Amino acid sequence: MVRLEYVQEAVSGRARRGRLLTRRGEVDTPAFMPVGTQATVKSLLPEEVAELGAQIILGNTYHLLLRPGLEVVEAHGGLHGFMGWEGPILTDSGGFQVFSLGALRTVEEEGVSFRNHLDGGLMSLTPELAVQAQESLGSDIMMMLDECPPAGAERAYVERALERDARWAARAKAARTESGGALMGIVQGGVYPDLRVKSLELICGQELDGYALGGLSVGEPKEVMMEVIDQTVPQLPKERPAYLMGVGTPEDLVACVGLGVDMFDCVLPTRMARNGTLFTSTGRLNIRNARYADDQAPVDANCGCLACRRFSRAYLRHLFMARELLAYRLNTIHNLYQVLGLMAGLREAIARDQYDAFARDFWAQRAPEPGEEN
Amino acid sequence: MVRLEYVQEAVSGRARRGRLLTRRGEVDTPAFMPVGTQATVKSLLPEEVAELGAQIILGNTYHLLLRPGLEVVEAHGGLHGFMGWEGPILTDSGGFQVFSLGALRTVEEEGVSFRNHLDGGLMSLTPELAVQAQESLGSDIMMMLDECPPAGAERAYVERALERDARWAARAKAARTESGGALMGIVQGGVYPDLRVKSLELICGQELDGYALGGLSVGEPKEVMMEVIDQTVPQLPKERPAYLMGVGTPEDLVACVGLGVDMFDCVLPTRMARNGTLFTSTGRLNIRNARYADDQAPVDANCGCLACRRFSRAYLRHLFMARELLAYRLNTIHNLYQVLGLMAGLREAIARDQYDAFARDFWAQRAPEPGEEN
Repeated sequence: MVRLEYVQEAVSGRARRGRLLTRRGEVDTPAFMPVGTQATVKSLLPEEVAELGAQIILGNTYHLLLRPGLEVVEAHGGLHGFMGWEGPILTDSGGFQVFSLGALRTVEEEGVSFRNHLDGGLMSLTPELAVQAQESLGSDIMMMLDECPPAGAERAYVERALERDARWAARAKAARTESGGALMGIVQGGVYPDLRVKSLELICGQELDGYALGGLSVGEPKEVMMEVIDQTVPQLPKERPAYLMGVGTPEDLVACVGLGVDMFDCVLPTRMARNGTLFTSTGRLNIRNARYADDQAPVDANCGCLACRRFSRAYLRHLFMARELLAYRLNTIHNLYQVLGLMAGLREAIARDQYDAFARDFWAQRAPEPGEEN
Repeated sequence: MVRLEYVQEAVSGRARRGRLLTRRGEVDTPAFMPVGTQATVKSLLPEEVAELGAQIILGNTYHLLLRPGLEVVEAHGGLHGFMGWEGPILTDSGGFQVFSLGALRTVEEEGVSFRNHLDGGLMSLTPELAVQAQESLGSDIMMMLDECPPAGAERAYVERALERDARWAARAKAARTESGGALMGIVQGGVYPDLRVKSLELICGQELDGYALGGLSVGEPKEVMMEVIDQTVPQLPKERPAYLMGVGTPEDLVACVGLGVDMFDCVLPTRMARNGTLFTSTGRLNIRNARYADDQAPVDANCGCLACRRFSRAYLRHLFMARELLAYRLNTIHNLYQVLGLMAGLREAIARDQYDAFARDFWAQRAPEPGEEN
């Protein structure tokens, strides 16, 4: 059974344009996956997410496990039926959230025990349970359970974790059933180049359906993150998609696509939107700023999103200052339109072997001008 | 210049079916006006409000005066341009909110002084200023400044207020400019039948474009409210629309349409939606109830709204419990669909002279059944 195929269609430098073939349809890559943490991309209907250009979204197993619980989702025919999204869904394993609980969790060879953040109940997650949970959700692309050590974790800790991750990858693969979705491995190793290599060899040797870089954008300096990506992506198997987890500002997307990454997810575009920070073709602006109080211009005159076509900065600022629900929705639409449009632009540029020119223009537009926010 | 015309098309008992002709298009009556307090019907886009069947919405002058301020709205060509609503807009005078401020306001013959609820700044509102503000907003139907005494106000206080209201009505009419919208008067008088008559005579003698009943649904017993409406509406001029301010649950709408009311506004359908209370064809349900946790049925199998066509009670409950923004939006869509659909049903029934049968069916469906919430 084919669970996930990657078809490379064009390259431009190290950037590549391709397609993911999933059991629920195709995804053009490089792709950004909006995050639908709790069975909803916050404030939006599924069809609005699709209209913005998303072909795949991400669901968070940890959150859904706690609320509403797997049985409820499963009874609706999985996450697709529950939330009304018809395209492919990638789910994480739940591990990232569990390991973020810090002192509330204990990791052992078998798996991880934790007290959940909602009612403090004692729960556990193992490589097998993470796969079972994701299969219950009807995930099209599942992620293996792994440990994501925090930035600054000691070398010995990172090494022990990645070795365990490799054993967990094998257990995840063995736990997958015939009707389950694809399964991707996760390369850890922190900021230690040789440990990244070690993790990559251990994980990629297991013939999974794709490979992710984990443990980045967790607090390390940006240059260090870029260096790890720069060094690791070229070593991933070319016939499989490369997924950079948790990264997704416009600047990072342009840079990391240039390093050969095919898939991204990140809460920042939607979270920043809800905090009033809006992406523009020249950088970003904070709609709370008093300078926009009577500004009749759209957020970005070059943007074709609903918010920019229909409403002024003054209106969006008013909605935000008045804490109106429509503010979060219009801001989310705007930022997702920006990010998904950026990905479409990158794909098109790569197809014409123009990645470098695209990236140059992108950075040139961001050069700060007098009086501009950046 | 014709500012507002009412055309009666059918009657059924005391209920009447008609049309309001405003400078921005027609409104079928009896009509429910969704409330867009701060230049937005909370969580919805203007086109969604229109698709739900609303032909006119209400804006709150007090709120807009404070935030974003009249200059900003005026610079956008008024509220229509600012928020993107193309149909008629009725605005209140701001008086209701100001008088709700209680100890923070002082009323005199000239007008009312108050400290606003946002920054405590000292402001004042007069009959003239209320008209000017509403004209700045581009209101199609303006309301006169009046005093809304609280439930339980003493007779002497209510009488003094309604006499002042009559003088304020004349000043409001005089303040209106040639390019201004229609101006409606407000009949007060509390729960005192003879004072209602006195106010009605004083206000309706001024040949305004329509007449509202104010000072109801402010805490008095429901039977008393219905009695005042029952007694007052028949005395209003038939060639002008009758507007009952601040009333709009399904039950009240059916009852008050039967008493001859043409126009309604109320925050309850949208506010209750945001609190998880959903109207159904048999009453209402609270989506927080644990009984809905795994309920795959729609909120109301007889409802054609987006939420009921697409999502289960379990999903809506999940969104609500998880405090997801989409919860408030879907619940708002549902309750407005219910209320606006109810108004369409009432209009159709009146056109066939079937108001009584419609109301009988409505109440029969609400008879509590074992295990039902009501």
